[in-house]
Amino acid sequence: MDHLPTLEDIHQAHQRIKPFIHRTPVLTSELINISANCSIFFKCENFQKVGAFKMRGAANAVLSLPATRISRGVATHSSGNHAQALAKAAASTGTKAYIVMPESAPQVKVNAVKDYGAEIYFCNSTQQAREQTLRAVLRETGATFIHPYDDYHIIAGQATAAAELIDEVESLDVLIAPVGGGGLLSGTCLSANYLQPEAIIYGAEPSGADDAKRSLDSGMIHPSIEPSTIADGLLTSLSERTFGIIKNHVRDILTVDDQEIMAALRLVWERLKIVIEPSAAVPVAAVLKNPELFAQKRVGLVISGGNADLEEIDVVLHPQVLELVRDHPLG
Amino acid sequence: MDHLPTLEDIHQAHQRIKPFIHRTPVLTSELINISANCSIFFKCENFQKVGAFKMRGAANAVLSLPATRISRGVATHSSGNHAQALAKAAASTGTKAYIVMPESAPQVKVNAVKDYGAEIYFCNSTQQAREQTLRAVLRETGATFIHPYDDYHIIAGQATAAAELIDEVESLDVLIAPVGGGGLLSGTCLSANYLQPEAIIYGAEPSGADDAKRSLDSGMIHPSIEPSTIADGLLTSLSERTFGIIKNHVRDILTVDDQEIMAALRLVWERLKIVIEPSAAVPVAAVLKNPELFAQKRVGLVISGGNADLEEIDVVLHPQVLELVRDHPLG
Repeated sequence: MDHLPTLEDIHQAHQRIKPFIHRTPVLTSELINISANCSIFFKCENFQKVGAFKMRGAANAVLSLPATRISRGVATHSSGNHAQALAKAAASTGTKAYIVMPESAPQVKVNAVKDYGAEIYFCNSTQQAREQTLRAVLRETGATFIHPYDDYHIIAGQATAAAELIDEVESLDVLIAPVGGGGLLSGTCLSANYLQPEAIIYGAEPSGADDAKRSLDSGMIHPSIEPSTIADGLLTSLSERTFGIIKNHVRDILTVDDQEIMAALRLVWERLKIVIEPSAAVPVAAVLKNPELFAQKRVGLVISGGNADLEEIDVVLHPQVLELVRDHPLG
Repeated sequence: MDHLPTLEDIHQAHQRIKPFIHRTPVLTSELINISANCSIFFKCENFQKVGAFKMRGAANAVLSLPATRISRGVATHSSGNHAQALAKAAASTGTKAYIVMPESAPQVKVNAVKDYGAEIYFCNSTQQAREQTLRAVLRETGATFIHPYDDYHIIAGQATAAAELIDEVESLDVLIAPVGGGGLLSGTCLSANYLQPEAIIYGAEPSGADDAKRSLDSGMIHPSIEPSTIADGLLTSLSERTFGIIKNHVRDILTVDDQEIMAALRLVWERLKIVIEPSAAVPVAAVLKNPELFAQKRVGLVISGGNADLEEIDVVLHPQVLELVRDHPLG
């Protein structure tokens, strides 16, 4: 697709991917609403197939390929949710996925992608090695490269999450989504623009990876250089396509630090009783941190995913466990 | 109520409590079904008000009181989910709850009960001190004692969870629920007996608190003496009323150890993306441990609650964190 997705494009994407995705529930919590002094409607993409909204875009991208290309498979480089989503989308449509991953990728993520039947190519963890390996894979297999977000089919697919949310919850005043590469946020912008045009849109970003904030403030893309945050789904830079949409529709990008992210994650786990990954807690933290922006508002919030690495979260969530052990060594 | 709840009693309980409870969702997971070689339908009472099925029984018990008694309030001794449920049920119906708690109760549980507006009386943690304090409270306030499970109104209320599950999912072959005092399990027995009589019923219990197993095997109630398990909602003994039902309807009580419980908890967190407490993982562990009983069956499983103590779970779930810290001290 070589044009900004129209409302009709988003509707068509939705029809196309419906057999391959879940319509995820919208949850609310009285106690969280009291804490936040607003009404938050959580669109729970942690319950999406592969545990993240990425399934929507990947399914739309694969299903939009012409028959001659779909049969030769799809490829990408990723060790995150996009890799799993593309692997699952390819398997669901009877074709092959080739995934380039750094050798340092956690075994659990490698296994998840393998379990969906994808073929994995390992490379060094530099950007250069990943791109080089991907080019070789594309040459060898004839597969089509599916970028994780700089692709209007992907953006139209991600837009369907906010479209469902707006369809289900009346009169949202605000929509907020996390921003990494910007696929989810730009899709959210488009659906809101077509379906709830008076709503204000915010992005939410870790302060340790605040390239989107700097990009929006300056009006030009700042790359994400040496990002450092527990929210490992939000490390990438914006692209031409996503930034083009975001700069026209997003009021502000709100940043939160890792401690605020983990407090929000914990609140959601304890109150909503759902497992979300740190990246998904970023907009929750942003709402809690900025009461003046959200007071008494009806807030639509996209929970991006639930693929939490329980070991890693432990250590961050509970420094007191470490303290305890340090003070009372077992050995 | 001085008789075994009839189907009509359970229906009436359901109508009575409907405005005060959530109809909780039934979730499934393809990947868990593959692991378990059966189809498990999870009735998610972790999403219930106060985070546990206990809200059903407490609401029914409070709402079944005559007007003259309801106005004088209700009382119990508990530091667990029953305390929160009774506090919330009293608040919802505009009356007062008096809760006796041991001084050693975790602050977070004390706060939860206080937040629902209940009055708390602290005592020593012995059974004798708790009962003595409760008697004094009843004398002083004129409140009605609501037992956590040895009460047919409570049992009829808990029965509504399985009634909803059977209503929503056709042709269940098996139902399984955790057993502590037996309120949930005996209620599950009654609903199954009336609504899905051909279904087989199992209880699931921690091996470190296997008094229900010993009771069922011997035909007489064995008290729970010095139970030791991470599943802290399942420490209590059966009562005359609950055991009377359980011994007539339960095929077997399946026991699982703490390691099996935590593996099941982790599976549910990672695959279903929901937060459950260790007690709620007990029947999941029992299904995984006994494939010969459940193979190819349609299994209804009641997830009893989601009030997980994240600190405590950490330490049990991730001994490797402790190992790591021991090997690499921070100080």
